[in-house]
Amino acid sequence: MDEPRWLDAEEMRLWDRFLAAGALVDRAVDQHLKTEGLSHTQYEVLVRLSAEPGGAMRMTDLAAALYTSKSGLTYQVGKLEDAGLVRRVDDDTDVRGVNAVLTEAGRTRLVEVAPHHVALVRRVFLDVLDPTQRAAITAGLSAVADRLTDRPDADLDR
Amino acid sequence: MDEPRWLDAEEMRLWDRFLAAGALVDRAVDQHLKTEGLSHTQYEVLVRLSAEPGGAMRMTDLAAALYTSKSGLTYQVGKLEDAGLVRRVDDDTDVRGVNAVLTEAGRTRLVEVAPHHVALVRRVFLDVLDPTQRAAITAGLSAVADRLTDRPDADLDR
Repeated sequence: MDEPRWLDAEEMRLWDRFLAAGALVDRAVDQHLKTEGLSHTQYEVLVRLSAEPGGAMRMTDLAAALYTSKSGLTYQVGKLEDAGLVRRVDDDTDVRGVNAVLTEAGRTRLVEVAPHHVALVRRVFLDVLDPTQRAAITAGLSAVADRLTDRPDADLDR
Repeated sequence: MDEPRWLDAEEMRLWDRFLAAGALVDRAVDQHLKTEGLSHTQYEVLVRLSAEPGGAMRMTDLAAALYTSKSGLTYQVGKLEDAGLVRRVDDDTDVRGVNAVLTEAGRTRLVEVAPHHVALVRRVFLDVLDPTQRAAITAGLSAVADRLTDRPDADLDR
């Protein structure tokens, strides 16, 4: 490896603020959802399913949408199933597929929890950003996410 | 609670991209450091200690700097101690204090791992952002982090 190009002060600050905001916002979101007996992943599962026709989504699609591992998602959906908020059913159209399906109890739970979650997202994140920052963060972090989604292992190639 | 102000499409995209970039960058960083036998928190501990005189820092200051819980940090520093990379010693100047101190082996390990880590941070994050995005993300996410640092529990007040 060539002599490393260390981060300068500005780059270090950018990286540090990205990590800090991520960790602190995660903590705030987790703290709130914990009082509702949900993890952040579990909450996101309810949200995604609620937006689908019939409240159903294939487990593999759900894992991809939430950027989580298949095994991690299986665990979280198992918890939701234990709580009666989601059911797992075989996909009629694909012998390999398993669907997660939102139950009525799951939909009710989401309606109860979502208003406070959204208010928290506004308070700790959206409201803190001005319009220019909002646009730049959306564009910049989209590019970051796209690069890692298109070539998820590219970072380990070199 | 008043009728919730749901997120519009633009706000939802901003929030989604923030979560996605955070999850994907975390995963890339974790994957690399795992091949080196370190967690991201463990790596950050080595970095912070290496920047201090004598390679020493109080555990409480370290936890605050890394936005991690005291118990989480204690576990991670325990792992570093087992690996011989850090020692824990009582603080002479404060009977309640415990310092984490970088060992020579820890400093050597950091010198081995840091070049690849920094190259990864450039590749998956810094290089993807243009100068305007860099400035806006630094400013915006600083504001987000500061708000949650000044009033860490404010989000749960209402």
